[in-house]
Amino acid sequence: MPFTLSELAEQLDVLWRGDGDTLISSASTLQHGSQGALSFLANPAYRKYLADTCVSAVLLEQENVEACPVAALISANPYADYARAVRLLYPSQPLIPGVHASAVIDADAEVDPESCIGANVVVAASARIGKGVYLGPGCVIDAGVVIGEDSCLVANVTVLAKARIGRRVTIHPGAVIGSEGFGLAEVDDGWEKVPQLGSVRIGDDVDIGANTTIDRGALEDTVIEEGVRIDNQVQVAHNVFIGAHTAIAGCVGISGSARIGRHCRLAGGVGVVGHLEIADHVTVTGMSMITRSITRPGSVWSAGTPLMENTTWRRNAARMKQLDDLAKRLARIEKLHKK
Amino acid sequence: MPFTLSELAEQLDVLWRGDGDTLISSASTLQHGSQGALSFLANPAYRKYLADTCVSAVLLEQENVEACPVAALISANPYADYARAVRLLYPSQPLIPGVHASAVIDADAEVDPESCIGANVVVAASARIGKGVYLGPGCVIDAGVVIGEDSCLVANVTVLAKARIGRRVTIHPGAVIGSEGFGLAEVDDGWEKVPQLGSVRIGDDVDIGANTTIDRGALEDTVIEEGVRIDNQVQVAHNVFIGAHTAIAGCVGISGSARIGRHCRLAGGVGVVGHLEIADHVTVTGMSMITRSITRPGSVWSAGTPLMENTTWRRNAARMKQLDDLAKRLARIEKLHKK
Amino acid sequence: MPFTLSELAEQLDVLWRGDGDTLISSASTLQHGSQGALSFLANPAYRKYLADTCVSAVLLEQENVEACPVAALISANPYADYARAVRLLYPSQPLIPGVHASAVIDADAEVDPESCIGANVVVAASARIGKGVYLGPGCVIDAGVVIGEDSCLVANVTVLAKARIGRRVTIHPGAVIGSEGFGLAEVDDGWEKVPQLGSVRIGDDVDIGANTTIDRGALEDTVIEEGVRIDNQVQVAHNVFIGAHTAIAGCVGISGSARIGRHCRLAGGVGVVGHLEIADHVTVTGMSMITRSITRPGSVWSAGTPLMENTTWRRNAARMKQLDDLAKRLARIEKLHKK
Repeated sequence: MPFTLSELAEQLDVLWRGDGDTLISSASTLQHGSQGALSFLANPAYRKYLADTCVSAVLLEQENVEACPVAALISANPYADYARAVRLLYPSQPLIPGVHASAVIDADAEVDPESCIGANVVVAASARIGKGVYLGPGCVIDAGVVIGEDSCLVANVTVLAKARIGRRVTIHPGAVIGSEGFGLAEVDDGWEKVPQLGSVRIGDDVDIGANTTIDRGALEDTVIEEGVRIDNQVQVAHNVFIGAHTAIAGCVGISGSARIGRHCRLAGGVGVVGHLEIADHVTVTGMSMITRSITRPGSVWSAGTPLMENTTWRRNAARMKQLDDLAKRLARIEKLHKK
Repeated sequence: MPFTLSELAEQLDVLWRGDGDTLISSASTLQHGSQGALSFLANPAYRKYLADTCVSAVLLEQENVEACPVAALISANPYADYARAVRLLYPSQPLIPGVHASAVIDADAEVDPESCIGANVVVAASARIGKGVYLGPGCVIDAGVVIGEDSCLVANVTVLAKARIGRRVTIHPGAVIGSEGFGLAEVDDGWEKVPQLGSVRIGDDVDIGANTTIDRGALEDTVIEEGVRIDNQVQVAHNVFIGAHTAIAGCVGISGSARIGRHCRLAGGVGVVGHLEIADHVTVTGMSMITRSITRPGSVWSAGTPLMENTTWRRNAARMKQLDDLAKRLARIEKLHKK
Repeated sequence: MPFTLSELAEQLDVLWRGDGDTLISSASTLQHGSQGALSFLANPAYRKYLADTCVSAVLLEQENVEACPVAALISANPYADYARAVRLLYPSQPLIPGVHASAVIDADAEVDPESCIGANVVVAASARIGKGVYLGPGCVIDAGVVIGEDSCLVANVTVLAKARIGRRVTIHPGAVIGSEGFGLAEVDDGWEKVPQLGSVRIGDDVDIGANTTIDRGALEDTVIEEGVRIDNQVQVAHNVFIGAHTAIAGCVGISGSARIGRHCRLAGGVGVVGHLEIADHVTVTGMSMITRSITRPGSVWSAGTPLMENTTWRRNAARMKQLDDLAKRLARIEKLHKK
């Protein structure tokens, strides 16, 4: 859906520079766009593409306006405003309500007539599917599950254990919500399985990535608060609590009963040990293991060794096994010097 | 299903203290329970909740009886006995045998009449589904697969390659059993795919987590012995052998032909290199990479760097690249002192 | 399908030693085979099984011929020739064309009459399914997706976002192609979702493992070039580029806009940070995090600490937090000595 530059500026509530009648009908990168396209500049690494861009307009910060050879929309947060602009340029298709003939809906399920239930979807007894919900092909909604208004389960999603999903939640393909947690009690000859009686509660405006798994609680619920964003292939164990607006990148694993604050960021591959607490606004860098509670809000944490050429790494890695010995030898020398 | 305290004590074969007629009808945590609930105390971190608990009875060790303000069931292993108690209080629903109208069952498949085949399940030729088996919605059972009595495939599980699944096995949603292994022979211009002819054998009483993958063997079989517990998002490559009663937490990756002993514990995110052996009763802590065989039974292994504040970590990480150099410089100084 | 030794040698274009009429009808390992079986010797660790093997013939290098007690096929690349031999001995079943009665095919989809569409498959509008394609049970092919000739989607695979899949591509169960990337712009009170408008392009002869996820591009496409081999549970974020014939082992995570060269190898559990470039023929060892671009083709990289017994590791790990301090103290001592 095309807009003029001035119309877009008004919708986004930003200033513009250049010809207000410039027609914008698509979005593209700075380096590959053409006439009619809107681009954005947020990451300084892409500033080099600005001078030669062929797009019609660029969303950028005030400080980059002078360097912009085309029309500009001036924003304090170009990436966020670009996201809003794209939603205007590419409005999402309206939902076509109805239940596909191949879907299997239990007679005791409540499916809102203004929801869209795709091919081969299964909805079990007592499940409640809200208005505006989209259940894509192959989704399995187990008994007693509740899915709030305008949520979208893209395809092949499984939701179990009477999970309650909020409004405007997106769950990507292959995700499993409410699976049985890894509850085991050790006995002499192996393991006694601990029945998992809890559920999962997911707030409004949550995203859950493809093939991500969220276990139900053992007794109480696993809780994902509103606005949480979870990427692909993340594992969330039983009774984890994730505070509002926290973002969790791909391949993160969170052990049971860990409590993560609001507005945190866990980068890709981070591991979280169970039964600990992380304060609000905490950032953890990629592939770090969080082994203890983090109490200071806003702090940034890391673990891991830097990447090295394999031959260098081998030499250094061998020394990691001698580190305590090296430290003691150093202390001994220091002592000699103090004498 | 409610029990009196004395009935429960008898069923669990434990001693009790307090009013034997106390009615127990549910399970809960120490801190959030109410009348009629049974709780347990196993992790000392939760001992602080004992004094103010509102539950009717607590399963705990002898040493905590005095501190317990309500009725008590006295157990040497409260967590395991709690698991057994919960199974009594919340008996699992009896299976309702039958094949859902939407299921697609090959005429040459053998499906026991006392199994329950859910909506949109696909069972291919020559597959054998035992008595008491539950195949939840969307499961795909390929040709020649055998599923033993009382096993439960929750939903959207895929089983291929003539895998043989034991009795009382639980496979959680999205798991894939018998996928083709990553068998590649290097050739001048890329890779030659090595046909994977083996299968998967899974013993009795095994749990396999959501979105876990277990590849078929290249020539011989991938083997998971009885009582093994595998959490979510675990990857088991071709020809891996996992000994009985080993527990493998979420996000573990096990490379081809690794041989893991019995009663081992691999914590979350552990990686196992291929073609190595791990003795029985070995424990490996979270996110460690096992790069060589572990021959001593019962040993405990770790790798990784501790979590640090990012600024501290940066300084220390830079030194990890100089470690060999530091060690040599230290040795040089020591030599000077010996002169 | 049985061959004589000389027939196999001719088909593989290799020399043989022994009785050319030896009948070969199966493949097996050196240690467990019996008459009629062909085995191979590529990994020196298995050389110990050669002397006592009961197979009828072994594919091996010239240098091992003398030690071989049975007939031999002499190859410069025994593992690759073994792969080719197995394909001759176990020819794949011819595809039986047709659409299963339970499949849901949109009237506007183009499905080649010589493809095979399994039970409960869903193919949406405008999708194009090529000749010789196999779509196994439960696959979901979204609107506008194109799947090239002779590709095989084993079961429960989801393909979205108008992805274009090449010829002879294999996609294993549970894989998700074209899911929405993790595109988030930070705003004051949380995250603004950035619409993901790109697609996924997958070249010919690519393998994609079970439960692997490949996100669509944000604006331009995520690209997997021809001959790339991706194992199970790999996460490929939006706008990643993977060059031809690169092999990526299980549990690898690749962040957005990373650009990986041709003929690279990423071992299991490797993590790749976003927006960086890796040259051709680069190897990265298991569970390393690639935090910066690698410009030298053919180089080998590593990160991580070696595995230690837990007590040793604890002592050494504590010192990792003091490393910068230790280095400074060492420098101070060295200075004293220089005086």
